[in-house]
Amino acid sequence: MEFEKELKVTTTNIPGLLVFELPVHGDNRGWFKENWQKAKMTALGLPEDFEPVQNNISFNAKRGVTRGIHAEPWDKFISLATGEIFGAWVDLRPGDSFGQVFTTRLDPSRAIFVPRGVGNSFQALEDGTAYTYLVNAHWSLEMKKTYTFVNLADPQLDIQWPIPLEESERSEADLRHPMLKDAKPMEPKRT
Amino acid sequence: MEFEKELKVTTTNIPGLLVFELPVHGDNRGWFKENWQKAKMTALGLPEDFEPVQNNISFNAKRGVTRGIHAEPWDKFISLATGEIFGAWVDLRPGDSFGQVFTTRLDPSRAIFVPRGVGNSFQALEDGTAYTYLVNAHWSLEMKKTYTFVNLADPQLDIQWPIPLEESERSEADLRHPMLKDAKPMEPKRT
Ligand SMILES: Cc1cn([C@H]2C[C@H](O)[C@@H](COP(=O)(O)OP(=O)(O)O[C@H]3O[C@H](CO)[C@@H](O)[C@H](O)[C@H]3O)O2)c(=O)[nH]c1=O
Ligand SMILES: Cc1cn([C@H]2C[C@H](O)[C@@H](COP(=O)(O)OP(=O)(O)O[C@H]3O[C@H](CO)[C@@H](O)[C@H](O)[C@H]3O)O2)c(=O)[nH]c1=O
Repeated sequence: MEFEKELKVTTTNIPGLLVFELPVHGDNRGWFKENWQKAKMTALGLPEDFEPVQNNISFNAKRGVTRGIHAEPWDKFISLATGEIFGAWVDLRPGDSFGQVFTTRLDPSRAIFVPRGVGNSFQALEDGTAYTYLVNAHWSLEMKKTYTFVNLADPQLDIQWPIPLEESERSEADLRHPMLKDAKPMEPKRT
Repeated sequence: MEFEKELKVTTTNIPGLLVFELPVHGDNRGWFKENWQKAKMTALGLPEDFEPVQNNISFNAKRGVTRGIHAEPWDKFISLATGEIFGAWVDLRPGDSFGQVFTTRLDPSRAIFVPRGVGNSFQALEDGTAYTYLVNAHWSLEMKKTYTFVNLADPQLDIQWPIPLEESERSEADLRHPMLKDAKPMEPKRT
């Protein structure tokens, strides 16, 4: 992990999907970071109306744990507290960019903003990877029915998972999602 | 750590200092938790006007790292992504409860809401403890001048640190804070 970077945003091939470089300050105790800072990040292009109401943390015990691909009806700001991931994002909004894929690695010094309708997935590259994210709507089992899911192994997406999926730990649900060609696009408007 | 607890809040001897028990869901991949959920937690007593604008993460490399005691001019919702802490909170608001101390341990299944003016400190009990918190004002070096600091070793507070402070890793600044009797109380109103 790189320390003392300058806070920076880069755009990607998926409209609205933004990668943040975060300054991490190391010292004799460990390190400290501003993981999300509304004013500074909004000035750099984070949507102004991103007002989180929920923070989720998933702990990925072993290298190879893989989750996704889930598009949810809210925006997410994703980052790491410990460990490293290989992340893959797939545009599932109707339109020209439907099916576009973006992949990158995140460690605690990098974050990503994932707009509503963009499918989210990742693979833990270290044992004990703690993945944390802020969302701007409250989750419920009811809302889960409105997700769009795509299969991690879809050959059309051709995601180069660092650890072969057959060796990865996945949920039962994530083994059964449809391929992109059978996925129902998610309208980009917030409900 | 305990899994599948019911979301619950308990009050403490310090007015407004609230401890949350969080449901953590374990599975073949690791675990998942709603770390902060505005609607459910507000219904249980989290102040309605707690609207975070910043999320900070500190990584505590070794068991024994100790930080504090800092009262800041904003509210904090504190929890863990990995590891365990012994936390100590000291009321530094003028009034009857000035100097009251509350201590408890936190792991990823417990969180604490610390109102403005209550001094915050903790000691990591495990190597690689990732401490994460939400605050409802933006930090700046300028604002740091308005903190109230108290010494971790103040005999009047008599905090029973699990690891003796002499063996702990602390910042230079945290070695030099005044004792409670010399601390300047912090007005509880938000600026
Ligand atoms: C998303 C969510 C889930 N849950 C519960 C339901 C389950 O008992 C447990 C895990 O939920 P799952 O649906 O298996 O979560 P998972 O497959 O990890 O996927 C979610 O969490 C991932 C991070 O772990 C995100 O990257 C995904 O976008 C998100 O959909 O947590 C909640 O209680 N609240 C939530 O917000
Ligand atoms: C609080 C804060 C700090 N910083 C920078 C300043 C330093 O370069 C580095 C560490 O700051 P310090 O002032 O040493 O942080 P630390 O002693 O850990 O204390 C803060 O962080 C603790 C958690 O680490 C909290 O429990 C304390 O309440 C808080 O005051 O991070 C930021 O860039 N933004 C911030 O919000």
